[in-house]
Amino acid sequence: METFKLVISYDGSGYHGWQRQKTDRTIQAEVERALTTMTGSPIRVMGSGRTDAGVHALGQVVSFQSDAGLVPEVYRKGLNSLLPDDILILRCDRMHSAFHARYDARSKHYQYRILNRELPSIMERHFIWHIKRKLNLAAMQTAAAYFVGRHDFKAFEGTGSPRSSTVREVFRADMQLPGDDRILFDIEADGFLRHMVRNIVGTLVDVGQGKIEADTVAEILDSKDRGLAGATAPARGLFLMAVRY
Amino acid sequence: METFKLVISYDGSGYHGWQRQKTDRTIQAEVERALTTMTGSPIRVMGSGRTDAGVHALGQVVSFQSDAGLVPEVYRKGLNSLLPDDILILRCDRMHSAFHARYDARSKHYQYRILNRELPSIMERHFIWHIKRKLNLAAMQTAAAYFVGRHDFKAFEGTGSPRSSTVREVFRADMQLPGDDRILFDIEADGFLRHMVRNIVGTLVDVGQGKIEADTVAEILDSKDRGLAGATAPARGLFLMAVRY
Repeated sequence: METFKLVISYDGSGYHGWQRQKTDRTIQAEVERALTTMTGSPIRVMGSGRTDAGVHALGQVVSFQSDAGLVPEVYRKGLNSLLPDDILILRCDRMHSAFHARYDARSKHYQYRILNRELPSIMERHFIWHIKRKLNLAAMQTAAAYFVGRHDFKAFEGTGSPRSSTVREVFRADMQLPGDDRILFDIEADGFLRHMVRNIVGTLVDVGQGKIEADTVAEILDSKDRGLAGATAPARGLFLMAVRY
Repeated sequence: METFKLVISYDGSGYHGWQRQKTDRTIQAEVERALTTMTGSPIRVMGSGRTDAGVHALGQVVSFQSDAGLVPEVYRKGLNSLLPDDILILRCDRMHSAFHARYDARSKHYQYRILNRELPSIMERHFIWHIKRKLNLAAMQTAAAYFVGRHDFKAFEGTGSPRSSTVREVFRADMQLPGDDRILFDIEADGFLRHMVRNIVGTLVDVGQGKIEADTVAEILDSKDRGLAGATAPARGLFLMAVRY
């Protein structure tokens, strides 16, 4: 058996998220189907983690094993010829046999995109959260800084899939402002709880709209109370940018 | 009767072009349906010109008349609430009664977008022509300059809808290079023949790939022979940017 790592980009708009499901269309199922077609034997892939329905990836990482004897470039080209045009294999590398896309991940980097102006952008409607009302960026930047460090993120965990530990370490949480109507929020951590990025973004937008004070974010973290944090931001603005090992 | 001008943006991916048809979904039909719903009486709109299936617009212009007594901002907001999310009214203005979106247009500006690198861009797949092989930009720029001026564009006219005159005046035909893998080709003229921009782009790409010499473009124009020009570039890279009056 040989072990391979794939780096994958996808437009999540047409999928019920990453993870294989019984009936709904998912990215994992598409990749496994293409690999099985290529190699002639059933192959399961392991993603670095799930992404929700409508969430995109520019650098999802998966691992898989095969004894088909194919070289990485053959996998990359073959998969791209078999996959639908909203999934793209960016690269394929052969790894040491113990490599595991999920357990070996040291950090994940997500980016959330907001368009802050009167009119939406038609061509980007699946890829950005359009907010008409002008946001207070300085307040959002102040608030974002509170997420950096080791914290219990229970107040920012979505319901439905509780984890035994809700403590995560955030290495980076900051905003880029390319142009005068776009906000890119980058966050990198050793792991994320369900809906954690989208709940953080929802809270930052509440800060930007003056609904809560920037400094209140510290109290929300301390409270561990989901009810105090903001609403979950829409999936469409979220991109899994990279997974680091 | 009052006369209004709309400036419209649309993602053409899901439509059989601008013009109303008996069965297929078109942008004109959507706009007319929304206007009719708003005003309670049937309204026909006149576009500055057709766009083909899959072609996009950032600044299509249409005119229409109504005696519903509504102000422009009510039309803009009302239409945007009724239209699907791939069509957006950017603005609405009241015009003098004789204004006609097609006959009064002095020029139209189209932009064609090419992504010139090994890997496609998943999120932009409906909005850009992906060409892997590195194009010779200097040659393409030389060739583009031949289109500027008053010429008979018969060699660049698509089949199926011949015009009585195939002479058009091109005011601008040049390339912008934002980043090292994107080519934006801008062309503005007093009018365009069917498929004219896409046939010009197909020819420019032939030049960029070394299939024909840049200076041959002058001969192709002179020949008035469609068979000498390049293939029709895909619709997805083409944007109607603006119509000038």
